[in-house]
Amino acid sequence: MLVNRRMIRIEWGDCDPAGIVFFPRYFQFFDTSTTALFERALGMTKFEFLKAYDIIGYPMVDTRARFLEASKFGDEAVIETSVAEIKRSSFNIVHRLMRHGELAVEGFETRVWVGRDPDDPNKMKSKPIPADVIARLRGG
Amino acid sequence: MLVNRRMIRIEWGDCDPAGIVFFPRYFQFFDTSTTALFERALGMTKFEFLKAYDIIGYPMVDTRARFLEASKFGDEAVIETSVAEIKRSSFNIVHRLMRHGELAVEGFETRVWVGRDPDDPNKMKSKPIPADVIARLRGG
Amino acid sequence: MLVNRRMIRIEWGDCDPAGIVFFPRYFQFFDTSTTALFERALGMTKFEFLKAYDIIGYPMVDTRARFLEASKFGDEAVIETSVAEIKRSSFNIVHRLMRHGELAVEGFETRVWVGRDPDDPNKMKSKPIPADVIARLRGG
Amino acid sequence: MLVNRRMIRIEWGDCDPAGIVFFPRYFQFFDTSTTALFERALGMTKFEFLKAYDIIGYPMVDTRARFLEASKFGDEAVIETSVAEIKRSSFNIVHRLMRHGELAVEGFETRVWVGRDPDDPNKMKSKPIPADVIARLRGG
Repeated sequence: MLVNRRMIRIEWGDCDPAGIVFFPRYFQFFDTSTTALFERALGMTKFEFLKAYDIIGYPMVDTRARFLEASKFGDEAVIETSVAEIKRSSFNIVHRLMRHGELAVEGFETRVWVGRDPDDPNKMKSKPIPADVIARLRGG
Repeated sequence: MLVNRRMIRIEWGDCDPAGIVFFPRYFQFFDTSTTALFERALGMTKFEFLKAYDIIGYPMVDTRARFLEASKFGDEAVIETSVAEIKRSSFNIVHRLMRHGELAVEGFETRVWVGRDPDDPNKMKSKPIPADVIARLRGG
Repeated sequence: MLVNRRMIRIEWGDCDPAGIVFFPRYFQFFDTSTTALFERALGMTKFEFLKAYDIIGYPMVDTRARFLEASKFGDEAVIETSVAEIKRSSFNIVHRLMRHGELAVEGFETRVWVGRDPDDPNKMKSKPIPADVIARLRGG
Repeated sequence: MLVNRRMIRIEWGDCDPAGIVFFPRYFQFFDTSTTALFERALGMTKFEFLKAYDIIGYPMVDTRARFLEASKFGDEAVIETSVAEIKRSSFNIVHRLMRHGELAVEGFETRVWVGRDPDDPNKMKSKPIPADVIARLRGG
């Protein structure tokens, strides 16, 4: 499976009055990492691949994170992101946020590939993930 | 002109490591107050009036804020919002965030009423603000 | 165990280009709900009870959310928050975000009660949750 | 005066249902750019220089932004940040967010250099900006 790594830097505005990252921010970091993984796999920006595959996105169905070490503003970290499993219209992603080579936060996501519901354009409906997207996420 | 008042409460996640509101948050509060003003004027939610008037929104053209007193988590405040001026396709809003009856933050906005560009649906284009919207913002 | 309910309203700025809540926002909503539960249990704002109990906060150790129904700007919801379990220095919280009486998002949190590390004021250290805090969270 | 440039990338979570950057986000980008300017001038992270100069931060007193071109997720931009003026305990910063060599957003900030109020540690008090900080911001 494909793995993507990206560096992040914790900023003042990511932190709360305790001086550490306000935890919802990690989910924002992870969302960007999932985008980066897809962009790398598909060779297009998210803006482009949403159009290319006629989808609205891949909304979250289930997510979890475990926080082992707090980070503060000025800290740098690496997020390693990989696909854990791909099903017909959903997939699982794992994120590992590492600081100084140690795991600081671990994130898990289950997302679903969705387009507009043909029967009601105000609604979303899951679609099968195209075979070439699956192949590319598998690193093929 | 119409005036709208709403109460807000500063939360832990709105504050930075100095323990006070991270200033970009005030612009988020003010954005919600502008929505509240329009919703009150038009008697519809923003979701509904975007459809009713066939617009994408009223993006910001120019905004300014002056910060007189810092607020911390747990503080309550009132935001008073009013229309200062309405032009053909733009309008000016003023926000006054009050704490204990004293002005703590003052915000100014110039926004433009936009729809899809008929020549390029990927672009936005300003539209004249409908007469009934103007009348209602004027408190008529 | 104590239960707290609070109404929220989804705002424009909570939503992403798909028009639905950007999922990290739910964790922010839940964080505010946990604060509200403690404030109700202890009869103090978070600012006050952090001082009263000499703690820095109750950082997240593990959190999970399941997303059953998407919400869009203008939607109103109720978040029901309750303590699921209290241990010596950690506790579990459950959030149920309901729309029109139906469960839309479910959140789970494990947090730890921490103060400054007496050996290193730059670090945090877990502390036993005071007996009166436990009693009040139990609704006693 | 010192100038700092940094690249940013607009992410999905920075954008609103109109598909463009939710404007308060620009202030967050600018805040990070101000930090980057100081870090470059002082050769320390913000975490380090707050301690080195015994300050709580440099809260915003007045800020303004003009929005010339909207940006969408996947867009890349450069933010050019410079000091416009330095007074005894306050300073003005200018940000220019450029896309494809064109100015897209312009930001202005007046901030004040503050420490703890010696008479009330719960309050902040402005302090004179140290001479070496001024010299380094001037690019000396």
